[in-house]
Amino acid sequence: MEPLRIGLVGLGTVGGGVGRILEQYAERNALRAGRPLVIQKAAVRDLTKPREIELSASQLTTDPFEVVTDPSVDVVLELIGGLDPARKLVETALEHGKDVVTANKALICAHGQELFRKARELGRTICFEAAVAGGCPIIAAIGQSMASNQIVSLEAIINGTCNFILTEMFHKNVSYADAVKKAQALGYAESDPAMDVEGTDAAQKLGILTQLAFGTRVVPEQFPVQGINTLDLDDLKYADELGYAVKLLATAKLVEGKLELHTQPTLLRHQRPLAQCDNAYNMIELTGDSVGKAWFSAMGAGQMATASAVVADVIDLAIGRAQLTFLKLDVWGSHTPVPLQEAAEICRRYYFRFNVEDRPHVIADLADVFGRHEISLASVLQKEASEVDESGESHPIVPLVFMTHRTLEGSVQAANRELAELACVRAPWVCLPVAD
Amino acid sequence: MEPLRIGLVGLGTVGGGVGRILEQYAERNALRAGRPLVIQKAAVRDLTKPREIELSASQLTTDPFEVVTDPSVDVVLELIGGLDPARKLVETALEHGKDVVTANKALICAHGQELFRKARELGRTICFEAAVAGGCPIIAAIGQSMASNQIVSLEAIINGTCNFILTEMFHKNVSYADAVKKAQALGYAESDPAMDVEGTDAAQKLGILTQLAFGTRVVPEQFPVQGINTLDLDDLKYADELGYAVKLLATAKLVEGKLELHTQPTLLRHQRPLAQCDNAYNMIELTGDSVGKAWFSAMGAGQMATASAVVADVIDLAIGRAQLTFLKLDVWGSHTPVPLQEAAEICRRYYFRFNVEDRPHVIADLADVFGRHEISLASVLQKEASEVDESGESHPIVPLVFMTHRTLEGSVQAANRELAELACVRAPWVCLPVAD
Repeated sequence: MEPLRIGLVGLGTVGGGVGRILEQYAERNALRAGRPLVIQKAAVRDLTKPREIELSASQLTTDPFEVVTDPSVDVVLELIGGLDPARKLVETALEHGKDVVTANKALICAHGQELFRKARELGRTICFEAAVAGGCPIIAAIGQSMASNQIVSLEAIINGTCNFILTEMFHKNVSYADAVKKAQALGYAESDPAMDVEGTDAAQKLGILTQLAFGTRVVPEQFPVQGINTLDLDDLKYADELGYAVKLLATAKLVEGKLELHTQPTLLRHQRPLAQCDNAYNMIELTGDSVGKAWFSAMGAGQMATASAVVADVIDLAIGRAQLTFLKLDVWGSHTPVPLQEAAEICRRYYFRFNVEDRPHVIADLADVFGRHEISLASVLQKEASEVDESGESHPIVPLVFMTHRTLEGSVQAANRELAELACVRAPWVCLPVAD
Repeated sequence: MEPLRIGLVGLGTVGGGVGRILEQYAERNALRAGRPLVIQKAAVRDLTKPREIELSASQLTTDPFEVVTDPSVDVVLELIGGLDPARKLVETALEHGKDVVTANKALICAHGQELFRKARELGRTICFEAAVAGGCPIIAAIGQSMASNQIVSLEAIINGTCNFILTEMFHKNVSYADAVKKAQALGYAESDPAMDVEGTDAAQKLGILTQLAFGTRVVPEQFPVQGINTLDLDDLKYADELGYAVKLLATAKLVEGKLELHTQPTLLRHQRPLAQCDNAYNMIELTGDSVGKAWFSAMGAGQMATASAVVADVIDLAIGRAQLTFLKLDVWGSHTPVPLQEAAEICRRYYFRFNVEDRPHVIADLADVFGRHEISLASVLQKEASEVDESGESHPIVPLVFMTHRTLEGSVQAANRELAELACVRAPWVCLPVAD
């Protein structure tokens, strides 16, 4: 059969991995795809840089637009990430009659709807399994395997870098800063880790999953997003003592006809499978109205897990299955998208940690604020102050941890504003949600 | 669009669940499938029995062959299980131009190859996601999402009934017999639980997964299969003390170009996700040569998880995707199927428990047998005998637990035969493999 001719845009970490699978397992890929998968052309930044795969000079270019307009290319793999020029490259590829496989969550989250519309108008297909959760086939799970279900809840650890950092902090007893350095040394974190550690990357992926599962288009600006960059090792330890692990959790769930959405460091009971997902692994817990709970877990960062998903999409395109799936993607949600729950109306339990002055009436002052905002306290953890006080404060400063019963996010925010006025409270001040 | 007309063969537990999804979510199903899914005809055993869904008298028949030959039926759902008459019904359906969806692992394991060949000759499709692991989309994972990988290892808890029984024994501190009764009361186990507890059901499912992942056709008679029906609560407790959970584990893995296969109660380190899969849930741990490890978990027993998988297959057929997948199924393995590893050559660690006489030289006698068979002991656990002996034996009888280093199954069998001759050893006598 005719080969499927691939145009690679980007030969970095993921692109290099894709190249390796295409080169190393060419025979196997051809068998499974029903036709050979060949790299026709590849755009790179630097022609002189050593590469993981062998490509001839005529196959290489520094101009990605040369790849996406090349008449001999059937499918473009967009693996450079970011919005610009990725968006223009994908549009141009579609206009030139090419199908597109992308691992670009920022692009799909921000412009998926327009790009999908354009692709459909042009009779082309966009595949993006690799954009969410690396080696977990979560796009296929929602769009195909769970098609007989309405997803009612989706809770996910979908940033491998953050999960690695949190695991490292807790198990190796190191600070956030040291764990970030380790993640960078291992290639899990970028030199500027902001997109990961501030929660943006996970929130973008949640946006994509939400659109698929609930038909609601959202961008991270529309729901609470909090990163792990303000977390302290102490909080991981206090949470553990209370029976919880802390994970960067992306949540989308139906609550009384509305969609509750957030991406935040969250306390999860040790017994839950999500709490046991460590290192750079991802895990998604889906709840469907027929199937009940289902879990998907695999590596969420690193070269080969993502490359594996990209090549699976290419095989799907070669077989013709991806085209059928893509035509159906817009109907996974309900006809009328589910409206978003107001952030203030989200009802959960919360974990609070303050540093407070160790003197009479402090707990009473704090508890008074909570009480007036209808926040009921479930437990209090106060450690004795060290006998030797070196802080120079008139009273020693001690950490105080509260766990609340279920309460509204709006009440928590209002209480937080009042607590900030109290003289007895010092930084750091941590307020984290608790998953059910 | 034209509706997809369904012929249901079997309206028992799974059939009833399928009927409920088709009836209750007709609008949603039509949206996702691109056409209405309607029940055209259904074969039941007893026309007078109350049913979960409403069907008119003209839709019902007691003759399943009436369903599979009905010209107005497009797709037959075979949900009666067993080999006879299921095989004949599926063949007849194919011959009458119908696609088939089945949840019948016994049928696919025993006759999948012939049925698939017949279907291909007739241009028809057989879907069987529901035959393995209930709500886990493991067939789709191997055949599609992991298509860019060679699976190198597959370890699976794929019998929800056994997993429920083992969980119940360990966590509720009850005997095997009592746990079976509870499983029956909850509808997880049949009145004759033999197929589940003897390991046959899990072994059949392993046979199906093995054919998909490695291209090797196997039936349970060709590899070691051991059930949970000889397990004692004591072994679950000793294993726990040593750091392991005991699970009915189905394993298929590539070892030096050969395929190691077995389905046995197996010790798994507490830290492994498989060890933490409890109750009637299933979990499959796949290792691909690109993606690394991936886990899939969902309910493995019960009505709705299986029904969810059946309806997902029907939607896949309605979209036309299942037809494309089915054409490719025979190439998932290598061209030349991987040969089976001889059972005697399988190399693992083992757990032994004997009841032995509490007198001098017993451990030496046992250790001598192990030593002569080149079996190296990793640890020994012996509890003190009770002060009061009521056994009537000349010496009190005490349990003795050994953990070995890696050794050959053949050596273990030879040692077992010699140990049986020793006067100091009493029943029960337990020998279980340990997963790496």
